[in-house]
Amino acid sequence: MSVPSSAQPPSRVAIEDPRPLIDCGRFAAKACVGDRVDVSALIFRDGAQALAAVVRYRGPAHAGWREMPMRRLPAEAGEDRWGGHFVVDEQGAWRWSIEAWTDEWGSWRDELDRKVAAGVEDLDSELAEGAALLKATAARAASTGGADRLAAAAALLEDRGAALRERTETALDPELAQICARHAARYGAAQMNPPAIVDVERERARFGSWYELFPRSFGGFAGVAGQLPTLAALGFDVLYLPPIHPIGVTRRKGRNNALVAGAADPGSPWAIGSAAGGHKAVNPELGTLEDFDRLVAAAGAHGIEIALDFAIQCSADHPWLREHPEWFNHRPDGTLKYAENPPKRYEDIYNVNFDCEDWRGLWAALHEIVEFWVDRGVRVFRVDNPHTKPFAFWKWLIEEVRVGHPDVIFLAEAFTRPAPLRELAKLGFSQSYTYFTWKNSRSELEEFVSELAHSGMELYCRPNLFVNTPDILHAYLQDGGPPAFRTRLILAATLSPTYGIYSGFEDFENVAVQPGSEEYLDSEKYEIKQRTLDGPLLPLIGRLNEIRREHAVLQRLDNVTFLPVENDALIAYAKTGAEETLIVVINLDPHAPQEGIVIIPSRLGLPPVLEVRDLLGGERFSWRLGRNFVRLDPAERAAHLLLVEPAA
Amino acid sequence: MSVPSSAQPPSRVAIEDPRPLIDCGRFAAKACVGDRVDVSALIFRDGAQALAAVVRYRGPAHAGWREMPMRRLPAEAGEDRWGGHFVVDEQGAWRWSIEAWTDEWGSWRDELDRKVAAGVEDLDSELAEGAALLKATAARAASTGGADRLAAAAALLEDRGAALRERTETALDPELAQICARHAARYGAAQMNPPAIVDVERERARFGSWYELFPRSFGGFAGVAGQLPTLAALGFDVLYLPPIHPIGVTRRKGRNNALVAGAADPGSPWAIGSAAGGHKAVNPELGTLEDFDRLVAAAGAHGIEIALDFAIQCSADHPWLREHPEWFNHRPDGTLKYAENPPKRYEDIYNVNFDCEDWRGLWAALHEIVEFWVDRGVRVFRVDNPHTKPFAFWKWLIEEVRVGHPDVIFLAEAFTRPAPLRELAKLGFSQSYTYFTWKNSRSELEEFVSELAHSGMELYCRPNLFVNTPDILHAYLQDGGPPAFRTRLILAATLSPTYGIYSGFEDFENVAVQPGSEEYLDSEKYEIKQRTLDGPLLPLIGRLNEIRREHAVLQRLDNVTFLPVENDALIAYAKTGAEETLIVVINLDPHAPQEGIVIIPSRLGLPPVLEVRDLLGGERFSWRLGRNFVRLDPAERAAHLLLVEPAA
Repeated sequence: MSVPSSAQPPSRVAIEDPRPLIDCGRFAAKACVGDRVDVSALIFRDGAQALAAVVRYRGPAHAGWREMPMRRLPAEAGEDRWGGHFVVDEQGAWRWSIEAWTDEWGSWRDELDRKVAAGVEDLDSELAEGAALLKATAARAASTGGADRLAAAAALLEDRGAALRERTETALDPELAQICARHAARYGAAQMNPPAIVDVERERARFGSWYELFPRSFGGFAGVAGQLPTLAALGFDVLYLPPIHPIGVTRRKGRNNALVAGAADPGSPWAIGSAAGGHKAVNPELGTLEDFDRLVAAAGAHGIEIALDFAIQCSADHPWLREHPEWFNHRPDGTLKYAENPPKRYEDIYNVNFDCEDWRGLWAALHEIVEFWVDRGVRVFRVDNPHTKPFAFWKWLIEEVRVGHPDVIFLAEAFTRPAPLRELAKLGFSQSYTYFTWKNSRSELEEFVSELAHSGMELYCRPNLFVNTPDILHAYLQDGGPPAFRTRLILAATLSPTYGIYSGFEDFENVAVQPGSEEYLDSEKYEIKQRTLDGPLLPLIGRLNEIRREHAVLQRLDNVTFLPVENDALIAYAKTGAEETLIVVINLDPHAPQEGIVIIPSRLGLPPVLEVRDLLGGERFSWRLGRNFVRLDPAERAAHLLLVEPAA
Repeated sequence: MSVPSSAQPPSRVAIEDPRPLIDCGRFAAKACVGDRVDVSALIFRDGAQALAAVVRYRGPAHAGWREMPMRRLPAEAGEDRWGGHFVVDEQGAWRWSIEAWTDEWGSWRDELDRKVAAGVEDLDSELAEGAALLKATAARAASTGGADRLAAAAALLEDRGAALRERTETALDPELAQICARHAARYGAAQMNPPAIVDVERERARFGSWYELFPRSFGGFAGVAGQLPTLAALGFDVLYLPPIHPIGVTRRKGRNNALVAGAADPGSPWAIGSAAGGHKAVNPELGTLEDFDRLVAAAGAHGIEIALDFAIQCSADHPWLREHPEWFNHRPDGTLKYAENPPKRYEDIYNVNFDCEDWRGLWAALHEIVEFWVDRGVRVFRVDNPHTKPFAFWKWLIEEVRVGHPDVIFLAEAFTRPAPLRELAKLGFSQSYTYFTWKNSRSELEEFVSELAHSGMELYCRPNLFVNTPDILHAYLQDGGPPAFRTRLILAATLSPTYGIYSGFEDFENVAVQPGSEEYLDSEKYEIKQRTLDGPLLPLIGRLNEIRREHAVLQRLDNVTFLPVENDALIAYAKTGAEETLIVVINLDPHAPQEGIVIIPSRLGLPPVLEVRDLLGGERFSWRLGRNFVRLDPAERAAHLLLVEPAA
């Protein structure tokens, strides 16, 4: 080793711990169009010189880098932490970096300031230094007009005949400092390298109300189209359909997952593929492709998006088993291997083999499927069991699709351990299912939501809080009756910007197939229901969706603060924004009235006395910082949604 | 974009959040020779297959990579976290990485195990699969002898004539699994890339007792040599000398930092350089270079290392000002600029200009200085104000010196803000001064030490807790008299593996130059003292150093647990190791006896009743889990150092 060979010495400025950065920048942070991206870093150098810094950013369509100034943040953010921001107004990958340098004029001015304050009078030498800096700055500013002012100031600083006070006042002029900052030489600048990435999606990736239904229970595509006005009036944004493809006949499952199906049993929509086609076909019992296209168009006209289920698995009758046996697992005797999780066997399902020799052909074919539906206007995909397919495949697929269609949203059904759930979110899934259905007590909910909202996870993982799914009817709902449904609905709709309901929830359906099971009795997965959209919970659902659209504080995740409550059967939290504060108090006990003290802490920055209005009941209450009494009777209402009225 | 062009699909295994990693691996973690380096990472893949992993490591003298197995850690470490370790037995940069892959045999065996447990009897197809795996493994094991056993097992698995139970027992044989693991194909292996670095130093970088003295107050080098037997008997490992170089005459400071020195005033050792020479010369008043060499040799014979002060600054008389005026700051009129921090001026000091055109010549000259003293046997440098010189310079210098002399230790006098303090530690300084002298209350001490020991900082920053310095006589010592000195000494010596004392501390010197100042009256920085090593605190110092050498728990930083105490004037902590536990209780109030309850929490893993022996007083006490009464009268003793005796 020897002295570095560069002509200029290495930069003296350090840029450390830049944020937001996911796993050292290996993954992108997430944002939505219109967001302000706040970035920060520790920026410092040796010695006492002043520094200057900018955040540099570049959107997908920008021809070059743009800049916004960074400022030293208040001490509570941490000493030497600087912050800046930029607004993302376009979907796609935005890059950002930081440049920081020694502020020569600022450093000189700071020293002069302290000498003037100390009454030092022999400043000719200092002012001559300042003049030299101004002249160099003037040379750089030559083309932009500020040069004259800089030159004049330089001349005055050097003029030993002029009054000292006039010379120092000119030197310390804040406006002159601004001109110098604009034309800074950026001497010894340091760069944050490589740049970080923010993946910007449209707003629906963060905020939306989902409804899930089996089209066959509503009369197929045409029947579903007939429900659109009702769904739109209820304020739903996304209508998610389980797989709409032809269903296998061989080893088809019967009602309640029976091993042998009756002649009239329709089979599980997740057993994809029959003689009628595979993942690019529709189940003829639902209608034709054209019927589907009409549904997508009609939904769009109602402001609703159709979300399709992307389930990579094949029934025994899927065309791929004949056309591409090389994509499946084989036993030593050459036969295909069905799916199993010993001792369970899924004889109606064949998984593809991502380790097969023609994995590239398989990836391309799966990509084709997604593009097929994208071409038919679908922009939202709910991905079935993504944690049983390779991470690298998903990363590639999502990037590939979003190159041409940056508006496509992928929801991961990541019912798996935390590490793979997080990995799928990091690699590109817009949203993820979560452990919400299993979090029912106050401590469980607070820990669960705090991790999502405040642990750093909020930078890349957007939860979609489904209150139920065709696979999950939690014991809390089985045991709690209608009050339990109201409580879970309000929790989901107010804790998370995105939440979802699976059909039947509004009817308080709560009978499990057997004690201890989370499966529905007579599950819609294996039979056709005759459903109507008129359940008793719909008015509350509609009102909640309306409130969610009206109040931006419910459209973000990271603005939640849990409030102390002196009764563990109650949960309380504030959702805060620049313009308003909403206080939510919910009774978690579906069986009995609960009362207690909710504490409004001073750190919320609210006035000492609060006029609040309940957005659900309409009542007005007078609350205050500190202790507030609440009583909630589940027979009457599950919650208060208290909007803090602006001070008169 | 299109499907990746590689023949093999990307690995399905993810390796996330490897530890220890400093700032994404940009800096090395630190260790000492003999340490076991524990590493871990989240290791997982899609699906349910079994995994296997190894940590790969490579010492500076290793010809290639070595491996140690990794295992899934217990759940309390976090789901999907795997751990492994390796021992570092040589100074220098060690590299480590992780390789993880799908355990084909383990996955197959696990499925078979579950089927056997479920009583499945039709297993021919499964066993044929297993046989195929064994044959492939046998082919890989061909040269090492295990192949025969693998082939025999394969034959049995395929033998439909043999009893099913015999076939499955063979298939599930743990020993067979071990052979398969040894010869695993490492199918679809993932690597942690790039490798991380652990910078391994000798033990003295972590553990040592330092004493600082001004040689001129002990009669120069020869006089200091005469103190070595005493210092060795007191248990000191490092003897740190402020700059030993010729002192400038021009604008020399007088007693108590007077602007004008008297004729007999010796000047500050930090005003380096005179007609007698610069940083490679010694002050003739201390002796000759040969005298210094003799001191280094004599110290070594006593097991003591001499630490020199590396202060990059020059008096007005330093030869460099004439020989290399281009290395210094100039005013517009061409004169040299002295150091200043307005309104303060340091007219006796000139700083070098690291931004000068010949910065490379300056770096090389500074490196030469260090190498000059290294060549004379010095292996420890205390670096003055490193935070006012470029970070890049220090990184380069330390690496450069340690290429040839990996045993050189650098202590940073980083009395600066946290960000630059941490940066200097990360870039290579072995140790750092800290904010210890300003942490005196229990809450201050607990927060301060917890950050050093448990925040991740322990991976790269080793504190050197000096109880005083020539610049810092804290008000606590000024006001608290001898009990305050005892308290601070015991805190430093038991909280940190490395601590230091500046001469005079043992005499309870505690008079400040003026009220509110931390400067000593008649500071040794500006005058010669006639010192002897016989202060009244020396017996306690000697006993503490003896205890520190005898008890390995005091030689580590990260093994401290603060204990609840029901009196804020008392502090208590446990230092725990594999072989013993030490409980320290200290009275922080130098003015009055304090008593209270110290709580031993169950998480320390101690038995319900503890026999403890005070290493300072020799008394034995019976303590227990939970509440224990303590009373400490500062007039008698400052602390208990309670060694938990092994259970009978």
